[in-house]
Amino acid sequence: MNTVSQMRIQKPAEEIFEAFVDPEKIGGFWFSSSSERWQEGKTVTLTYKEYDAEGDIKIIELLENEKIVFEWAGSHAVTIHFLPEQSNSTIVKVKEDGFDNKDENLISQLLDNKEGWVYMLTCLKGYMEYGVSLRASLIKQG
Amino acid sequence: MNTVSQMRIQKPAEEIFEAFVDPEKIGGFWFSSSSERWQEGKTVTLTYKEYDAEGDIKIIELLENEKIVFEWAGSHAVTIHFLPEQSNSTIVKVKEDGFDNKDENLISQLLDNKEGWVYMLTCLKGYMEYGVSLRASLIKQG
Repeated sequence: MNTVSQMRIQKPAEEIFEAFVDPEKIGGFWFSSSSERWQEGKTVTLTYKEYDAEGDIKIIELLENEKIVFEWAGSHAVTIHFLPEQSNSTIVKVKEDGFDNKDENLISQLLDNKEGWVYMLTCLKGYMEYGVSLRASLIKQG
Repeated sequence: MNTVSQMRIQKPAEEIFEAFVDPEKIGGFWFSSSSERWQEGKTVTLTYKEYDAEGDIKIIELLENEKIVFEWAGSHAVTIHFLPEQSNSTIVKVKEDGFDNKDENLISQLLDNKEGWVYMLTCLKGYMEYGVSLRASLIKQG
């Protein structure tokens, strides 16, 4: 099982790609910061200061302005594609693989995951197109 | 089965509630228009001009600034709660009930539904807090 989420953003792929890999920019739409610039082969620590949380990701592949692949959450692989369109817009496509089809909590894991990616992508759109921050406001079901 | 999605928005409940029921405002964050102001007992047609699509919802309950319940998609019931917090912020909570646990496409139905609500709520946040439109840019998995 995997999840796939896709958003059209009215900016060129280079600008959007840069927002992921630049530790100063990620705080505009996703985690509050990265420990360093994303590079192939690096392990980067992502911090969520609002939730007093952090986690490592391992950058498996980084194809400038086109594709990022990283591992997190154990054996989960995340692939982000930057697909250029006409008129300088870009489709950002996120796929996460590695869900265990036999896990009794599979459905809630998939829903949490889908929620997180759609939220991040919409925050990314707001940040790239208007420079506004919409992050850290999703409330998990209690 | 149901889905529950919740977002904190830095505006009072009255303003956010009004954005749902006013046919001029819904186009800022969700459908492009409503056929009329939402009122208890009414059937309202929602139009997505970008997708050349429309559908009816039946307003079952409308408690000013607090709660909206409507039916759509056959037997699905949607409940939107507006939960005031301190500092004039509000948690908007959306619950959709009516999924058939035995449907072979249950997981994809739940994921599509979760995607739609999280996207709408994030667009609502952008519209209410910054007056920006982020809607009609989610790409369904092809």
